[in-house]
Amino acid sequence: MDRKIPYKIYLKETEMPRQWYNMRADMINKPAPLLNPETLQPLTEADLEPMFCKELCRQELDDTTPYFDIPQEILNFYRMYRPSPLVRAYCLEEMLDTPAHIYYKFEGNNTSGSHKLNSAIAQAYYAKQQGLKGLTTETGAGQWGTALSMASAYFGLDCNVYMVRVSYEQKPFRREVMRTYGASVVPSPSTQTEVGRKILEEFPGTGGSLGCAISEAVEAASKKEGYRYALGSVLNQVLLHQSIIGLETKAALDKYDIKADVVIGCAGGGSNLAGLIAPFVRDKIKGINDCDIIAVEPASCPSLTRGVYKYDYCDTGMVCPLQKMYTLGNGFIPSASHAGGLRYHGMSSTLSQLYHDKIISARTAIQTEVFDTAQEFARVEGILPAPESAHAIKVAIDEALECKKTGEAKNIVFGLTGTGYFDMYAYKRFNDGDMTDYVPTDAELAKGFATIPDLEINR
Amino acid sequence: MDRKIPYKIYLKETEMPRQWYNMRADMINKPAPLLNPETLQPLTEADLEPMFCKELCRQELDDTTPYFDIPQEILNFYRMYRPSPLVRAYCLEEMLDTPAHIYYKFEGNNTSGSHKLNSAIAQAYYAKQQGLKGLTTETGAGQWGTALSMASAYFGLDCNVYMVRVSYEQKPFRREVMRTYGASVVPSPSTQTEVGRKILEEFPGTGGSLGCAISEAVEAASKKEGYRYALGSVLNQVLLHQSIIGLETKAALDKYDIKADVVIGCAGGGSNLAGLIAPFVRDKIKGINDCDIIAVEPASCPSLTRGVYKYDYCDTGMVCPLQKMYTLGNGFIPSASHAGGLRYHGMSSTLSQLYHDKIISARTAIQTEVFDTAQEFARVEGILPAPESAHAIKVAIDEALECKKTGEAKNIVFGLTGTGYFDMYAYKRFNDGDMTDYVPTDAELAKGFATIPDLEINR
Repeated sequence: MDRKIPYKIYLKETEMPRQWYNMRADMINKPAPLLNPETLQPLTEADLEPMFCKELCRQELDDTTPYFDIPQEILNFYRMYRPSPLVRAYCLEEMLDTPAHIYYKFEGNNTSGSHKLNSAIAQAYYAKQQGLKGLTTETGAGQWGTALSMASAYFGLDCNVYMVRVSYEQKPFRREVMRTYGASVVPSPSTQTEVGRKILEEFPGTGGSLGCAISEAVEAASKKEGYRYALGSVLNQVLLHQSIIGLETKAALDKYDIKADVVIGCAGGGSNLAGLIAPFVRDKIKGINDCDIIAVEPASCPSLTRGVYKYDYCDTGMVCPLQKMYTLGNGFIPSASHAGGLRYHGMSSTLSQLYHDKIISARTAIQTEVFDTAQEFARVEGILPAPESAHAIKVAIDEALECKKTGEAKNIVFGLTGTGYFDMYAYKRFNDGDMTDYVPTDAELAKGFATIPDLEINR
Repeated sequence: MDRKIPYKIYLKETEMPRQWYNMRADMINKPAPLLNPETLQPLTEADLEPMFCKELCRQELDDTTPYFDIPQEILNFYRMYRPSPLVRAYCLEEMLDTPAHIYYKFEGNNTSGSHKLNSAIAQAYYAKQQGLKGLTTETGAGQWGTALSMASAYFGLDCNVYMVRVSYEQKPFRREVMRTYGASVVPSPSTQTEVGRKILEEFPGTGGSLGCAISEAVEAASKKEGYRYALGSVLNQVLLHQSIIGLETKAALDKYDIKADVVIGCAGGGSNLAGLIAPFVRDKIKGINDCDIIAVEPASCPSLTRGVYKYDYCDTGMVCPLQKMYTLGNGFIPSASHAGGLRYHGMSSTLSQLYHDKIISARTAIQTEVFDTAQEFARVEGILPAPESAHAIKVAIDEALECKKTGEAKNIVFGLTGTGYFDMYAYKRFNDGDMTDYVPTDAELAKGFATIPDLEINR
């Protein structure tokens, strides 16, 4: 059975996008501005420049320019691992016996194992251009830290990674990948920063948290001459770089005259989802294609589906800017789920606005069901997915089974953000039958909501 | 700097090879026949059938048919992860400042992490066709076990993997990947087989060996109704399936009118090397393109470069057939190097014959130099290579630097067989400066040679 549409659609290098797309330029309701945590006034480029490279500050605040040229050096790097394939999931369709056509954009075919490299290389490039010496960052699950290590090695920049201590200990191999790329990796909280020493004093033996690691990385960047901080999600600059995912997806579909009916992505801070859906949001806003766009989040950390739309701090330490977003409260402590990349209390302000305006919808998925799906997918499609990515697979399968009931031959597109090679500890718990589920009670959520600042604008 | 030849050459699915190529058919001196270990007579299909599927026995012994059609089901599976990219190493060339053009065929873009899947899926397919229930196999480093687990899951076959105990303990995550694909994984030696129990009695607490795991898997297959044994290298059937690597490489080069001057692959049992070089050997034999073909082996296990060309057992237990090959002796115990996939005392009989006839040459590489190369490569080309693959990179770089001296713009092609995601323990030792080198002395080699059977044909 030879098929008209190939198993994997690869764009030619000449067909690859040469510009990133900035959704905000086409949004009718723009995302609310970031606020300076000290003045509570909208952030300026000058506020941001001590933290990020100049060009990235510009990208962060620009909500009118729709397209940004991708610099040639970044295009060259992209060509080492992009275009990523858009895969037609023939085997999955066959197993489900569905009339739906399922496609997934696979971002795991690079050494960082995920889409994170798309923004890491851009952030490293601008740092190099600005003549900086190095970058600092935090990492939880390790995908972002790996990506920034690779990007920094490519441009000869120093890279200091603060890795949440519990991950540092549970994922020694992730740490070694970063070291192989020349990065220094420090378990957080560490004694290298004031904030780290303070937390260690207060909570000796703590396993750390992403919020704490962010605070350490930000402090380290601010105190070292020639360093800036880099963040892997949430920010508009990151969303912009990740639009390469969606632009390639759209170009590949267009090449075969395929119109997406449903577009699905997992959502933690929002970088992958926003990147994947960018051109589909554009078409939806412009009335060209009114497809369903679905964010999938873990039931254990349901910022869109159960959060509130308020101004909140981006970090637990309340030193970073505030943004208006769907949030569970900066003090919400997500349970120790195995989808580390989705454990964030808030959601990018751009995605929050789109959700608020009902341009995208959201669903949750339960951990053990996600791993069931992941295993099923691995067996028929060959690829072992990251737990984060498997959230999107779960909903794609739900949609395909719905098509089976209705007889509709919808085109379902989802983002397969990465591979699970470094998540085998979680798979082991699943294989051993030791995995549990957690859904926060309303009372638990209320505790998190209580940590949202009681500002005039939030009333 | 846009370039005429893309960073990655992907064949279209319609351009993918639909036949495997059997080098033996075009070899003037055929490889010597396998011998039955009991009768010392050439093996027949009937001798092999209790061990392997019928069709695989036919493929094993056929040295006259040049092309075998790839069944449609296997083609379909190949399309999930093939064609693999032929990458132009622009960044590596730039770093080396060489006039040479360097290409590598990357086989690591699938969940098994290596080229092993190419033969695993074929072996599982024929087992399914024959109505078998399952397959047994051994695995050392884990790549082959993972590949066979994936292939078995796809066709709904049971898969029992005997994993060398020291790997089972050092690589728990490899084991979990196999379990996720539904395979049972048992540390070898085990108490499940007679040979396992015997070895455990003799050497309690042993870490096991590939030779022992092979014996256990063979015994298990022979005692379970509806099971056969599957092997990931050395055999002619495996070389045949792996020819897909070389055929794709050749087709991709042809597409851009590129003539290979040097073709390089790492060699353990020989499956990857033979697969990569197959069409280049054909062209060399036929006088079409007299390129250099180079096998690279670890200095710690130098079967081609320091072995003898004699009949020897394929396994340590001396229960498997004998083949004429370059061997260090079935009793040679390779040092505990980190390129587990290259720790085999012999070499496929077909490659041995080609080496004997000087159609291919061989070189060795030292472990720490190989890891130096791997790290350098990872930083400029992005891909973190398996230690095995890095042997080929080492010689490719040597050749490119030679071109720098001579000013020649040679086309250098090498096989990048897989990724190092599950080799981070080895990288850690390297990063920590704890890695050592080992080159056997002549006296140590003599001990191995003494274990080669003293047969009439060997005198």
